[in-house]
Amino acid sequence: MITLKDIRDAAKRVAPYTHRTPVMISHQLNRMFNAEICFKCENFQKIGAFKIRGATNAVMSLSVEEAAKGVATHSSGNHAQAVSLAARNRGITAHIVMPSNAKAVKLAAVKGYGGEVTLCAPTLAAREATLEKILEKTGAHMIHPYNDWRIIAGQATCALEILDDGVRPDIIVTPVGGGGLMSGTALATHYIHPGTKVIAAEPEKADDAHRSFTSGKLQPSVDPQTVCDGLLTSLGNNTFSVMMKHVSAVLTVSEDNIIAAMRLIWERLKIVVEPSAAVTLAAVMQYPDRFQDQSVALILTGGNVDLADLPW
Amino acid sequence: MITLKDIRDAAKRVAPYTHRTPVMISHQLNRMFNAEICFKCENFQKIGAFKIRGATNAVMSLSVEEAAKGVATHSSGNHAQAVSLAARNRGITAHIVMPSNAKAVKLAAVKGYGGEVTLCAPTLAAREATLEKILEKTGAHMIHPYNDWRIIAGQATCALEILDDGVRPDIIVTPVGGGGLMSGTALATHYIHPGTKVIAAEPEKADDAHRSFTSGKLQPSVDPQTVCDGLLTSLGNNTFSVMMKHVSAVLTVSEDNIIAAMRLIWERLKIVVEPSAAVTLAAVMQYPDRFQDQSVALILTGGNVDLADLPW
Repeated sequence: MITLKDIRDAAKRVAPYTHRTPVMISHQLNRMFNAEICFKCENFQKIGAFKIRGATNAVMSLSVEEAAKGVATHSSGNHAQAVSLAARNRGITAHIVMPSNAKAVKLAAVKGYGGEVTLCAPTLAAREATLEKILEKTGAHMIHPYNDWRIIAGQATCALEILDDGVRPDIIVTPVGGGGLMSGTALATHYIHPGTKVIAAEPEKADDAHRSFTSGKLQPSVDPQTVCDGLLTSLGNNTFSVMMKHVSAVLTVSEDNIIAAMRLIWERLKIVVEPSAAVTLAAVMQYPDRFQDQSVALILTGGNVDLADLPW
Repeated sequence: MITLKDIRDAAKRVAPYTHRTPVMISHQLNRMFNAEICFKCENFQKIGAFKIRGATNAVMSLSVEEAAKGVATHSSGNHAQAVSLAARNRGITAHIVMPSNAKAVKLAAVKGYGGEVTLCAPTLAAREATLEKILEKTGAHMIHPYNDWRIIAGQATCALEILDDGVRPDIIVTPVGGGGLMSGTALATHYIHPGTKVIAAEPEKADDAHRSFTSGKLQPSVDPQTVCDGLLTSLGNNTFSVMMKHVSAVLTVSEDNIIAAMRLIWERLKIVVEPSAAVTLAAVMQYPDRFQDQSVALILTGGNVDLADLPW
C-alpha cells in the first residue's frame, strides 16, 4: 500500500514532465443535471491521457542501475505511449510489445515518442511470451500498466491536484479499467479529504469491476464489447484491494449513455474526449438521484480518439 | 473610428458577461510549423464564439431610453445567439429575424437565450424587409453584426486580452468575414503594440476581403461556397476602411487546408473548433514562409459545429 508521502513524492517526480491540467465547468450542464460539476481535463495532458503520470513516476523512481537496461511493457494503448515518453525523458530505452493488429496511428505515436516496438500475434499469451523474451534478453525493467504501486501513486497525482486546488467535492467519479487511476484517486482522496466519496464508473458491457465489487472477489473481464477501448482490462490484486477499501460505489453505464455523454461534453465544453472518459458523465446521466444537488468532480481521462470513426 | 479608450471601456462593459478565454500552445504544432504559435480559444467563450463580446458591448452601451424598446437584428448564426444573450443579461427584449431554413439547433439555441424569433423567407431581401417591419412596429434598436463601431470595439477586447496578457507576437492572425473581429483586432494591436502585424485569413472560395484589399475598393462577396459558414458575408464600409489602414495582408486558404487545419487542432489541442476558426492555422500551413521562426497568435473564433456533419 502507498502513503500520502508516496503520492506527494510522485507529484514532485512527475511535475517537470506533465501538465497541471485545468478544471472546466459548464453552467448549462450544471442546470441540466441539477448538480455542481467540474471536469478535470486529462485530455489536455501530455500524450493526451493521464497515463503519463503513472509511467513517469515509475520510470523516474528507478535506481540508476535499474534504469540502465531500459524499461519494457506490452500495451496497444495510451500506456505504451506514456512509457515511451517517460523513458525518453529519462534518456533510456523503452521496449514496447504491441499486437500486430494495432492501429497504424497508435504504432506511429509510440515510435514518435521513441519507443522500440516489437510486434507479436494479437493474443494476450503472445504478448506476454514476447515481453518475457525481451526482458530476458535485455534485462529491461518491466512496467505494468496499473497493478503497480508506483503507477498507482503516479495516477493519484490527478486527484491530488483537484484537492490541492481547494476543490472539496462531495463526489469524485473516475473511470475504471485496470484500476490504476481509480486506486490512486481513492487513496489520495482518503488521505486528504475522506469526506469526499469516490465512485468508479465503467461500461455495462465491461462490468468486471462492478461484479468484483459486489461479490467481494476479483472477477476477470470476459470478452468486453464496448466503445470504451481504454476500459477493457481486468483489475489487478492491488487495485482490487484498494477498491474494496476506499471506493463507495461502482456504477455501470449503457453504451447509449456513454455516447450521449461524450457528445454532450464535446458540444458544451468544446473539448475532445475519448469514450472511456465519458463514462463519468454517463454515470451522472444514468443515476441522477445519486448526484442531484451534489458537488461532483469528473475525471476526463483522455482525448485520444479516431476523428474519422466517431460513435455517433 | 474608435480609440483605445473606447476599447478599454468596452472591456470593462463586457467583462462581467464574458469569459477571459485561455491561450493554448502545442509544442508538437510549433515543431511542425517551425513557429511559436499560441491559440486564443474563443471556442470556450459564452455562446461558443467571440460574437458575445461585440453584442454585449453594443447592448450594454445603450442609454436607458434606447434600451427600453429592445434590440433587433437578423442573423442565422452566432450573432443571433449573442444579441439574445446580451439582451437577456440587460433584461430587455431581443427581436431576431431568422431565415425559415435555419437549422433547428440554431433556432433552439436563440430561443434558449430568450430571443424572440420571427421567421422569414431565406433571402437577404426578405430578412431586411422583415427586420424593417419589426423596427417600425417595436421601435427596437438595430444591432448590425459587424459594421458598427460598438461591435468592433467589443470584438477588439479579444486581441486586447492577448496583448494585456503580456504576449507580444510578431503576427496575429484573425479570420475575416464581415470584418468586425478583424477591425477590432487591428485597432487594438495598432494602439497597444503596432510592432505586431495583423493578418486576415479567409477561404479562397469567399475571397471578397482579399479582392477588396488588393483592389483598394470594397468588393462584395459573391455566391461564396465554403465549409466556413461564419465567413460568408461581405465587409462593411467601416471594417473595410480599418482593413486598408491597419491590416498587413489578407491570405486566402483552400478548403482542403481549412479541413486539415481544423482536424489538426482537434487532434493536437483536443478542442472543438468550427471551420471558420481553422482558417487561421490553414494560413500558417499554406504560407509557411510568412510564419517561419515567428511568434504567432491565432484567434480561434468559435466552436459551434454540427458533430453529426463533420467535413472529414
